[in-house]
Amino acid sequence: MSDEGGQKQEYVEQGEFERDTNYVADRITKHARRPGHGPVDGELWPVEPGRYRLVAAKACPWANRAIIVRDLLGLQDVISLGTPGPTHDARSWTFDLDEGGRDPVLGIERLREAYLKRFPGYERGITVPAVVEESSGELVTNDYPWITHDFFFEWREHHRDGAPDLWPEHLREEMDEVMQRVFTEVNNGVYRCGFAGSQDAYEAAYARLWSTLEWLEERLADRRYLMGEAITEADVRLFTTLARFDAVYHGHFKCNRVKLTEMPHLWGYARDLFQTPGFGDNTDFEQIKQHYYLVHTDINPSGIVPAGPDPAVWLTAHGRG
Amino acid sequence: MSDEGGQKQEYVEQGEFERDTNYVADRITKHARRPGHGPVDGELWPVEPGRYRLVAAKACPWANRAIIVRDLLGLQDVISLGTPGPTHDARSWTFDLDEGGRDPVLGIERLREAYLKRFPGYERGITVPAVVEESSGELVTNDYPWITHDFFFEWREHHRDGAPDLWPEHLREEMDEVMQRVFTEVNNGVYRCGFAGSQDAYEAAYARLWSTLEWLEERLADRRYLMGEAITEADVRLFTTLARFDAVYHGHFKCNRVKLTEMPHLWGYARDLFQTPGFGDNTDFEQIKQHYYLVHTDINPSGIVPAGPDPAVWLTAHGRG
Repeated sequence: MSDEGGQKQEYVEQGEFERDTNYVADRITKHARRPGHGPVDGELWPVEPGRYRLVAAKACPWANRAIIVRDLLGLQDVISLGTPGPTHDARSWTFDLDEGGRDPVLGIERLREAYLKRFPGYERGITVPAVVEESSGELVTNDYPWITHDFFFEWREHHRDGAPDLWPEHLREEMDEVMQRVFTEVNNGVYRCGFAGSQDAYEAAYARLWSTLEWLEERLADRRYLMGEAITEADVRLFTTLARFDAVYHGHFKCNRVKLTEMPHLWGYARDLFQTPGFGDNTDFEQIKQHYYLVHTDINPSGIVPAGPDPAVWLTAHGRG
Repeated sequence: MSDEGGQKQEYVEQGEFERDTNYVADRITKHARRPGHGPVDGELWPVEPGRYRLVAAKACPWANRAIIVRDLLGLQDVISLGTPGPTHDARSWTFDLDEGGRDPVLGIERLREAYLKRFPGYERGITVPAVVEESSGELVTNDYPWITHDFFFEWREHHRDGAPDLWPEHLREEMDEVMQRVFTEVNNGVYRCGFAGSQDAYEAAYARLWSTLEWLEERLADRRYLMGEAITEADVRLFTTLARFDAVYHGHFKCNRVKLTEMPHLWGYARDLFQTPGFGDNTDFEQIKQHYYLVHTDINPSGIVPAGPDPAVWLTAHGRG
């Protein structure tokens, strides 16, 4: 996502961190424009197995969502996956984990190349997740909320048997409200704490974050998942922030009222998800820590990555369900 | 202590943090030099009620020891106390919490003035704790291990009735070993983590710290205090580090394997001490956090002080004794 692209990472002097939400708004869809279809500002691309590559760093919470949803729905054989390493410079995520430092399908060293191939002179942030057309090497979209939305709604005929209903129709209205609150107050709320440019802005951000974490803790007291008895997109979106909480946000972003492990319902819930195929197996704590502690040189000038906490606690019994 | 004086605070590039242990080695004693009396490099000053002022910032763990010991022994009426605020610049601790920004007895704005009055041109760190002669305004000593040692051994006839035996003769040998290990691995070990100049140096420091914390956790499983059933100087020395652990060292110094609250015996022990007169009433979490997060601009360039954790947990039942 934008701030992960290096250009928005400086904490804002004297003020509140604001996220750039200006993306390449193209979408991959089964049909052309239709009612209730969502935004149509960008171009539409057709669903076609084998045509697209999801480029998503495991370190990045916004990209991690797309990796998880792809696995939950069983889209691994129809949409390939490229994974940039955890660190990047101010200009681009790079494929430094791949042999020769190049993505084996796209043949590029830097994700930026796919952006520039599509839009020569592109000047905004080079963000993940991104979808790239394999044949042309051109960026298709980096509009992350729509990427996971369309994996579900547009690629349905390619889902595995028994794939979860991540967007249950009868819960949709409440789910949109929950996701909106989780986005502004938690997913983005931790960044608002970490990138605050003044003590006042930090303290206001901290109060907002913990107010919503308290609400979630209460909500999860009598619900196994955010929307009830089954996993939905709302859980994926909350999970990637919770997975980074004690390892990064608690110390690095000063979200330190308590650790996740000290919130009984949220901690049971987070482990329940972590131990579900698609979640924990796509969570890489070492990449996560390296990303934040190495990329944010303005917050952690020494570049030293903390050795703790021990991720083994994620495999302990969660007692839910 | 030295690194608290601003001159040793930069983490060491590529290397391990080393503490400057070069102090003004004067002592205040009841008699002149005698066998077994300890170092005699500096000058000797006579014990005399009303003559000296302990200058000790509540924020600093090394200074906090002296404040606690003074109270435990009941020396408040014979040795006065001046308390610099939690922050300082590269040159000196300052009396910014006092009316007009001056110590009400010494009349100085900066502790440095007392150092210079004794040693014009003094160039080493301006550290707390320091003992200053009230009448002359001159520094007497800043040799912190001997300050608390002499409060006990040399000022005995001024101790309150029922003052604890902080240095039991029959435990002395073992106690010296315990204090030495606590000093190098824990009191100083957290600084070695936080000021490490390379990932390797940090990881080595982290391993040393946690190895000794494990040893302490085990030791306290069947002992109420470090040396057995009574409080000694060894407990005072460990306490001031434990009191800062979750508030500062866990995040700021990356000592984040677990929080103190996750080590059952150490956490029970720390609360037991905190709830003993002389300990918790001399612990100021706000000053502690402000000191580290504002003074170490190389570790925390934003100067933002974390809002957590909630110190109310220190008052919960400790279940010991």
